[in-house]
Amino acid sequence: MDKKVELSILLDIYGNMLTEKQSKLLDDYYNNDLSLSEIAENNEITRQAVRDNLKKGENNLLEFEEKLGIMKQEMNKEKVIENVLKEIDTITANKDSFDSKEILKLKKIKDKLNSLI
Amino acid sequence: MDKKVELSILLDIYGNMLTEKQSKLLDDYYNNDLSLSEIAENNEITRQAVRDNLKKGENNLLEFEEKLGIMKQEMNKEKVIENVLKEIDTITANKDSFDSKEILKLKKIKDKLNSLI
Repeated sequence: MDKKVELSILLDIYGNMLTEKQSKLLDDYYNNDLSLSEIAENNEITRQAVRDNLKKGENNLLEFEEKLGIMKQEMNKEKVIENVLKEIDTITANKDSFDSKEILKLKKIKDKLNSLI
Repeated sequence: MDKKVELSILLDIYGNMLTEKQSKLLDDYYNNDLSLSEIAENNEITRQAVRDNLKKGENNLLEFEEKLGIMKQEMNKEKVIENVLKEIDTITANKDSFDSKEILKLKKIKDKLNSLI
């Protein structure tokens, strides 16, 4: 997985465990796509201080994932659900275009499963 | 939810964030159903020390859940999946709409979803 994508996901899961300052800097860098210079200017600190704080925050996030593994678990569950969604499609694909009550129910089931991923 | 059940679930999710000692004491108390006296004897510490360590560990677990909310999220997702499983049952109960191959597929889908909860 792309490092930026991974850290953005980890920030989403574990961000509340970071200090407010770290969380804000990582959010600006990984979600708002600000550059080191822009973050430095906005926070009136040096680029090196931004870099150091990002590194500390990243290490914390990676450590939380190593201990708790929430991202990995979620991704495995998502794979199962995506697989189930595809299988539901193979069932509904065989039916004619007029929606029966059961096909409609399957579509609603798909919506519910999609809300989980 | 029963406090013991809740703490057992939280220990399962966040246990790796505790110290090894705390994690072991909470596991003995919440999962292995040992009494304070038994845990004290096994670890050659006082009952009060067991009590203090359990309290600290419990507070840590509750704090992790307050910050990350993993248990709450998981329980909400489980509710959605349980609801979907019930709906699949109402579909398969009406056998006229699906042939045996499709019913088999729906059963396999149920197995997969059941593996998530």
